[in-house]
Amino acid sequence: MTKLISGFSKLSKEEKIKWLTENYFHNQSETLDIIKQYWNIDRELQQLHDDFIENTISNFYMPFGVAPNFVINDRPYVIPMVVEESSVVAAASLVGKFWSTRGGFKTKVISTVKIGQVHFMYAGNKSDLEAYFHQNKTELFAATASITKNMEKRGGGILDIQLIDKTDKLANYYQLHVTFETKDSMGANFINSCLEAIAQEFRNDDTEIVMSILSNYVPECLVRAEVSCKVEELGGENPQKFARKFEQAVKIAEIEPYRAVTHNKGIMNGIDAVVLATGNDFRAVEAGAHAYAARDGEYSSLSHCEVKDGIFKFWIEIPLALGTVGGLTALHPMAKLSLEMLQKPSARTLMQIMAAAGLAQNFAALRALTTKGIQHGHMKMHLQNILNQLGASEAEKQEITDYFDTRTVSHSAVVTKFNQLRKSKINWIDFLNEDIVRQKLAKINTNSKPIFGKMNGQQMIEHLSSVTQIANGNWEVDVFVSDEKTARRKPFLDSENELQVGFKASFLSEEPNKLKFSSYSEAIEDLIHQVKVFEKVFEENKNRTVVHPFFGELDYEYWKKFQVKHFTHHFKQFGLV
Amino acid sequence: MTKLISGFSKLSKEEKIKWLTENYFHNQSETLDIIKQYWNIDRELQQLHDDFIENTISNFYMPFGVAPNFVINDRPYVIPMVVEESSVVAAASLVGKFWSTRGGFKTKVISTVKIGQVHFMYAGNKSDLEAYFHQNKTELFAATASITKNMEKRGGGILDIQLIDKTDKLANYYQLHVTFETKDSMGANFINSCLEAIAQEFRNDDTEIVMSILSNYVPECLVRAEVSCKVEELGGENPQKFARKFEQAVKIAEIEPYRAVTHNKGIMNGIDAVVLATGNDFRAVEAGAHAYAARDGEYSSLSHCEVKDGIFKFWIEIPLALGTVGGLTALHPMAKLSLEMLQKPSARTLMQIMAAAGLAQNFAALRALTTKGIQHGHMKMHLQNILNQLGASEAEKQEITDYFDTRTVSHSAVVTKFNQLRKSKINWIDFLNEDIVRQKLAKINTNSKPIFGKMNGQQMIEHLSSVTQIANGNWEVDVFVSDEKTARRKPFLDSENELQVGFKASFLSEEPNKLKFSSYSEAIEDLIHQVKVFEKVFEENKNRTVVHPFFGELDYEYWKKFQVKHFTHHFKQFGLV
Repeated sequence: MTKLISGFSKLSKEEKIKWLTENYFHNQSETLDIIKQYWNIDRELQQLHDDFIENTISNFYMPFGVAPNFVINDRPYVIPMVVEESSVVAAASLVGKFWSTRGGFKTKVISTVKIGQVHFMYAGNKSDLEAYFHQNKTELFAATASITKNMEKRGGGILDIQLIDKTDKLANYYQLHVTFETKDSMGANFINSCLEAIAQEFRNDDTEIVMSILSNYVPECLVRAEVSCKVEELGGENPQKFARKFEQAVKIAEIEPYRAVTHNKGIMNGIDAVVLATGNDFRAVEAGAHAYAARDGEYSSLSHCEVKDGIFKFWIEIPLALGTVGGLTALHPMAKLSLEMLQKPSARTLMQIMAAAGLAQNFAALRALTTKGIQHGHMKMHLQNILNQLGASEAEKQEITDYFDTRTVSHSAVVTKFNQLRKSKINWIDFLNEDIVRQKLAKINTNSKPIFGKMNGQQMIEHLSSVTQIANGNWEVDVFVSDEKTARRKPFLDSENELQVGFKASFLSEEPNKLKFSSYSEAIEDLIHQVKVFEKVFEENKNRTVVHPFFGELDYEYWKKFQVKHFTHHFKQFGLV
Repeated sequence: MTKLISGFSKLSKEEKIKWLTENYFHNQSETLDIIKQYWNIDRELQQLHDDFIENTISNFYMPFGVAPNFVINDRPYVIPMVVEESSVVAAASLVGKFWSTRGGFKTKVISTVKIGQVHFMYAGNKSDLEAYFHQNKTELFAATASITKNMEKRGGGILDIQLIDKTDKLANYYQLHVTFETKDSMGANFINSCLEAIAQEFRNDDTEIVMSILSNYVPECLVRAEVSCKVEELGGENPQKFARKFEQAVKIAEIEPYRAVTHNKGIMNGIDAVVLATGNDFRAVEAGAHAYAARDGEYSSLSHCEVKDGIFKFWIEIPLALGTVGGLTALHPMAKLSLEMLQKPSARTLMQIMAAAGLAQNFAALRALTTKGIQHGHMKMHLQNILNQLGASEAEKQEITDYFDTRTVSHSAVVTKFNQLRKSKINWIDFLNEDIVRQKLAKINTNSKPIFGKMNGQQMIEHLSSVTQIANGNWEVDVFVSDEKTARRKPFLDSENELQVGFKASFLSEEPNKLKFSSYSEAIEDLIHQVKVFEKVFEENKNRTVVHPFFGELDYEYWKKFQVKHFTHHFKQFGLV
């Protein structure tokens, strides 16, 4: 089998990328450009990020956003969020603000116990094992002394070691179940090191240690967050109805696993965003949270709601094993910055902030679901993304957003609507039609003022001629356009889109050029002449290509597409379309 | 309450950052530097990333690594992985290669059904509701026609709509349970839009729609991956024992939830890394996987192992709802690149690749746990990170790595060992002690050759004098050192570390300067004199500070710390220490 390799990890970053692009990509230089455009220009900083894991070739940008106006136990916070899903930060911000005027979030840590286990097999007499365990328990603690020294200074350490009989589930299977307090560190390395030292001390000829490892199931590392207010303070048209439907939606998530999974997924949207931003481990937090949701035998909601005596109350209890020291928290500059933004919280405080962020996210989702439907808000964002992709103008965005306010957004529906709008409005200029060009240009003169931009009438005509001359080969523009940029830009010429108002290629000077011709009519004759040359040179050599200083290498078809857009753009500039 | 704000989302990115740093950070310019150093220099590209979510102020770099040598159904792959946890990519690479010579991964998609529900309340007669549902079922399909049109062209769409009675769990609660095939898209927007259209059509005066939403619980969107070989082909010292312990470890994860959660967390380390790299939604995948692990009433392992008739077999079944079109997959250039690296897979193929990545990760963890212990490999990486932080040389890294090969790694143990090593080797030069300086320098002369670098003996002495003169104020160096850089660099002066061999401040010229003095002894006298001036100017004004061109603004204490390191560095250069 080809395309396999030995010694890959020993290669330099450049060598790794070279092998990878040669074996797994069609366009090697384009791929290299994409990989490299994400490298930081500060080599030292890039090296730091490269060293976090193995075989690093680039950085994956996750958006770093912020949600202001969170009030948690009467203290204001701006919450840093790293998440790729749109609407999450917007929802958090709205809900943070909503509750800031209704008493804010009330949070408390219920417990902070972490767990690890030594799993082992023992075929002998149970009472012998128990006696052995009790005789040696002090030694088990002592075996970890060098590891626990610093943790104990900070008030943490091993809380207890218990022997647990699991032989009813699996023959000969026992555990040492160890509980820990790890203070401000997540404690994974600490716990695992302790467990391995304990196992080493505990092992004898009759026991076989299978493995020693922390548990990410942490039902005793628990935090609670709550919001509450009088029902009528919820606002809106009918706060009673809102509260009732909201409560129904939570009750459904409590009893229906299909709904509970998605309900909790929404909570985790908020929590994971803060987990990532602060350099914590989201797989650990996810595993712990979902296992906790399934603790009673059926997967259920992590949040709960009560409407009673005119009071609306909504709360969450969730296990969160976090660190604010160790791991990436201090190594990743943006994680460090996140913690500073949160006023350098202890792990206990960070648990509370995250629980509030999770509850906020859940509130936003349930509010949307039980009122306008989730798609309304979600599709509003989605719609904006599609419109950005299509290159819609602000006016077009407004018109299409209004249109979809009461209609279902889908990608194809938006594209259809957008094309209709464009089609109905654009009268493309057939620049090869001499009569039309002359007829239009007759309506202005040298000193006509443009609707946008700085050129006068004659400067505009001379500009169109100049650009045509690039295609004709009369005017060499010394601009390099990379393949990657060409690949990104050229599809625009196939689209129905116009050149943006205000678009200005970087190779053009800021101010209009001086006039070349002494009269307006001479300038027109020159333009008509250059367009004829344009047709001639390309007709004579059908394979001819010329580098366009913005779009890159173009053939006749693409140059014509460009010219249509370019002429239309400038004719519009003088109200001629 | 202060520090709250209205209209934050309407502010420009710069205005948002300004408000944020003024209200939540102590050092505004330093914070701004950190935020901005992560912006891409390509504005257009940065804008793309800013628009993915709301209130974006910067990018959070996640390392983008690759794991080569995966053979899946006889086809070679390099798997892109985005993950912040060290060892994950290294483990995947090792295991990918291990199984590549043992038949590779065998994978298959079991099913691809996705689910959504309309949750509603109905207090009337159940048979009336059933009749109403059956009469209108065709209309419910028809109501989604404009949404499903394109999906049906691709072979997907709505599979079925069922009415489900949940009144035994919650009074009056019913569902429309809808199944979907969404082909290569994850389908969240599609499913939610269909459900809302169905709910709109279904509603009448007797039903109250609570909400309409997809489910992230997808037990029928399932994929399987497997590895197997003869036990003796597993290699190592005792493959039989290895296979037996490995199987035991998996059995434990099957019956013990505390272990199962961490076991599955390890699987998700591999899966989420590919989820992120390909622009998919890891919260959705996490929720679905863990809920599936709890489907039988007790949280259990997602992977299984069998050792039978001399064959070792290890496999996973996991639900994965993914997309290879839509969402971020095409919008995020690195997600697009990941999919290209994977040879533009369908969603079905991507499910199989991810399942293999998850199984590989699980295999690596179990192999480590049941043999050397998890900390051995993990701490090897951790050790390298600590050594990088401490600025250890390659030789020091080697010596300390060897030392910890049989010892427990902890942060404090490494720092202690490192300091011992440094202390035992460094004889710091007391540069204020004239006798010592004269005595040492008497051993070389103008033309002595250095051990490293380009200076001769006298050039070195004149260089030490020049730098001392910066502190003395005789020699203005026009170099700006930002607060952020100072903050990052200055702590080095408090450390026990030496200046790196080969370290060269950027303000120094590449070639040594011409000699200033006509003899070696004159140069020494000048140096001694400048050191005396150094003491005098600082003693006269204890608050005096001078900008060091690399470390920034330093007071007397820090200048002395620097001089000790600097003199020691250059004395070593000539073998004088």
